[in-house]
Amino acid sequence: MPVTDLFESKPHHDQPYGDDANLQLSRSGGLRHLLTLRGLSRQMLSDLLDLSAEFLSPLGDAAVRTDTLAGKTVANLFFEPSTRTRASFDLAAKRLGADVLNLDVNTSSRKKGESILDMIYTLQAMQVDVFVVRDASAGVPAYIARHVKDHVSILNAGESDVSHPTQGILDLLTIRQHKKSFENLTVVIVGDIAHSRVARSAAQGLSIMGVGELRLVSPKSLAPNSDDFPRARIMHRLDEGIRGADVVMALRIQRERIGNLDGIPGIDEYFANYGVSHERMKMAAPDAIVMHPGPMNRGIEIESSLADSPCSVITQQVTNGLAVRMAILSTVCHNLDTR
Amino acid sequence: MPVTDLFESKPHHDQPYGDDANLQLSRSGGLRHLLTLRGLSRQMLSDLLDLSAEFLSPLGDAAVRTDTLAGKTVANLFFEPSTRTRASFDLAAKRLGADVLNLDVNTSSRKKGESILDMIYTLQAMQVDVFVVRDASAGVPAYIARHVKDHVSILNAGESDVSHPTQGILDLLTIRQHKKSFENLTVVIVGDIAHSRVARSAAQGLSIMGVGELRLVSPKSLAPNSDDFPRARIMHRLDEGIRGADVVMALRIQRERIGNLDGIPGIDEYFANYGVSHERMKMAAPDAIVMHPGPMNRGIEIESSLADSPCSVITQQVTNGLAVRMAILSTVCHNLDTR
Amino acid sequence: MPVTDLFESKPHHDQPYGDDANLQLSRSGGLRHLLTLRGLSRQMLSDLLDLSAEFLSPLGDAAVRTDTLAGKTVANLFFEPSTRTRASFDLAAKRLGADVLNLDVNTSSRKKGESILDMIYTLQAMQVDVFVVRDASAGVPAYIARHVKDHVSILNAGESDVSHPTQGILDLLTIRQHKKSFENLTVVIVGDIAHSRVARSAAQGLSIMGVGELRLVSPKSLAPNSDDFPRARIMHRLDEGIRGADVVMALRIQRERIGNLDGIPGIDEYFANYGVSHERMKMAAPDAIVMHPGPMNRGIEIESSLADSPCSVITQQVTNGLAVRMAILSTVCHNLDTR
Repeated sequence: MPVTDLFESKPHHDQPYGDDANLQLSRSGGLRHLLTLRGLSRQMLSDLLDLSAEFLSPLGDAAVRTDTLAGKTVANLFFEPSTRTRASFDLAAKRLGADVLNLDVNTSSRKKGESILDMIYTLQAMQVDVFVVRDASAGVPAYIARHVKDHVSILNAGESDVSHPTQGILDLLTIRQHKKSFENLTVVIVGDIAHSRVARSAAQGLSIMGVGELRLVSPKSLAPNSDDFPRARIMHRLDEGIRGADVVMALRIQRERIGNLDGIPGIDEYFANYGVSHERMKMAAPDAIVMHPGPMNRGIEIESSLADSPCSVITQQVTNGLAVRMAILSTVCHNLDTR
Repeated sequence: MPVTDLFESKPHHDQPYGDDANLQLSRSGGLRHLLTLRGLSRQMLSDLLDLSAEFLSPLGDAAVRTDTLAGKTVANLFFEPSTRTRASFDLAAKRLGADVLNLDVNTSSRKKGESILDMIYTLQAMQVDVFVVRDASAGVPAYIARHVKDHVSILNAGESDVSHPTQGILDLLTIRQHKKSFENLTVVIVGDIAHSRVARSAAQGLSIMGVGELRLVSPKSLAPNSDDFPRARIMHRLDEGIRGADVVMALRIQRERIGNLDGIPGIDEYFANYGVSHERMKMAAPDAIVMHPGPMNRGIEIESSLADSPCSVITQQVTNGLAVRMAILSTVCHNLDTR
Repeated sequence: MPVTDLFESKPHHDQPYGDDANLQLSRSGGLRHLLTLRGLSRQMLSDLLDLSAEFLSPLGDAAVRTDTLAGKTVANLFFEPSTRTRASFDLAAKRLGADVLNLDVNTSSRKKGESILDMIYTLQAMQVDVFVVRDASAGVPAYIARHVKDHVSILNAGESDVSHPTQGILDLLTIRQHKKSFENLTVVIVGDIAHSRVARSAAQGLSIMGVGELRLVSPKSLAPNSDDFPRARIMHRLDEGIRGADVVMALRIQRERIGNLDGIPGIDEYFANYGVSHERMKMAAPDAIVMHPGPMNRGIEIESSLADSPCSVITQQVTNGLAVRMAILSTVCHNLDTR
């Protein structure tokens, strides 16, 4: 297959996702790429969470800054617009002392018809060490990872509706900071599960950590294929799903999708049925926490004042995200150097 | 008021500007945010001018570079396009050793409907220390400043037609370099005063420094509300306003506005009546200086060759601007650290 | 001529290119700007190639990083979109320890009508030391170089169809790595010669180094003016031009131009007549190398698998390009400091 055909072809149909799990480990079993949480061991995830915690400092104190990546080059290749994830990787790399290359891919040579792989080969030849890739097409990060040289790492920063592994890890870190263990935990994720890479990565991470129960709540038209979430309970009533939950994660809902839902005519009715509110949180466990990957639509999937209330850990997720990305960058660069 | 309503609401009507002056000072009276020049003391402004001068080096020599802000993160949030001010803040932060995050807000999550406050909360959670904000809406910098945490500083880099405080300080610095004192000085500002944040901040700064006389010259249709400039003389004939002036500041005129002025049909006539020219400068004081905030429309508000002549201090203003921004960044970070 | 008229005027018609060659040398004969390869001595080019080689490290090893440009500021001013050249200059400057200012000129004050020269004056007043300029108009880099101060350097990063000197040097470096000398070498460049700044700079560089024979192959409608390539053989059949060649350089072809060629109805026929393929390479010298400036249209000007085969040095060109830009930046900054 010529590489120029990349975007017409569907590499992930030919290459089952199971492959990605192996692809991302080095021969000695260390993390070399981060493509998906699938296939990572509980020990490896726990180590990443422990390492992430070392990059946290009390808010108000100076940010943690090291020279771990001095001399390394990190390229942010975002083919989808992003503020928070791009900024998070950008700062993570800079605070580790790396040189950072931010490529605005919309105004780039991709207009001239260059394939994504040739763009990667070009940047690889400039001795870029780590590529942070966000793309709207499934399979792109793994496709790139299969083609780069041994001394290059690919980090998935959001892949279609398939995977968002650093988000998954930061969600685990946030939960671990508030709950003693994963085993007895009931987690509910509510919103557009069908199209959510956040939900997929969270579910994979929670499953690896041995979560007690995972409930996925959505309108029927936004329900996932149950094959994608093998051990989860798929539900359609939030009043039922939230009962006794220890963790309530609201997902961003695309406004344009709401109008198209059968039996859900508009924003008000969506909020009434699926919005996470103070009222509904009374049905959850007394010390339940509220999460959201951001950016939020206040008043649609989450009550605005709830997002700012003590049970909300939403900004803490952001802080954790930066620490997780520092941990991932440190880990893959360490594994590249000692390969 | 839900934060998502920010851009429909007008926060500055509910919150009189007088508040901004207090808001920007720490409890010990030091500068913590820079929102406006209003309310700053003459001593504080003088100290900032003195500090700014320390960041100047002779053109051709190496730029001043320090590690004062090592470990700090400065985020440039420009919601209006800008080359010079953005570049000036970018270089100021880098030359102080900070990590800099440049956010292209047009291609960001603001498209997805996130409120500006949630964007700030997100970046604050990434331990951004200073936000440099430019916005077309009045009140946005103060609105943000009211909501950030104690260890975060907001710098106004241009706010609607209301305020552009770093520009005001660099104008003061430039005047002080050429004139012995402010007391006996006659300053004339000519152009679109009604819509100019540059004029407002310059007038506030000059007033605090005790300027002798401030004249504001514009066509009647571009004249300001006199309440905005309590101690200035509002005039409509440049030939009169420029007489004996020590400082002549020409403002950028929006081409699209010229055609709409009563009795001013076009560019040639605007230049004939309000253009700062060699000919007109003969009526000013013999050692008068010519200023312009840039970018210039040569041949409209200013004669092209005059802008490049010895009495022009226009590029010096740019050099001073960078030094002023280094001084402001140093000051607020120092005050944050010792709060 | 008022500077605002720059883009309507054609400065390079009034200022013959011969001037650029002198303009770029300091009084002591060192390189101060890089505008064109024309007029550089063989010794100077050889020295640049030797210096470039010092910035290379084995792929997989750490990139070379120094503090040669610590305290310097490099501004990338790209008025045409670019990924690879912009990224290459960006990383070159960062790996030498410079502060880098990347200006997205499309969203800048140029919209407001500011002339390019006033933009340069502004940035110069911020103590920018080196401007890297790409522009679609011929003559712009030299025009700027004539107006900046003594302590400022202009590097041409691609100028209309006229010049791309760093590309020319990286092509020479790549050839020198594979071939013993230039004297007995036959080089063929194939593609849209008429519109190619890459071909012009390569031809100038090869001529200075004393290349044995240079052949330029293109359809008649894309043939250059022979005055632009005084010592080259202009040909129209690749089967003839490639015979015995030691170096085969394919140029990017603009898809939109193909349909307009007399007698060349489409992509397939272009490839059949002018595509560099495994089959055609059999007619070249046994150890011939294949070059391409990128980005490639695989299957149009070059057979896809040939671009990835052992005789291809295309990614090596990219690696060399970064080293060449580090060498150029080091050289001009050294010459500025010792002027």
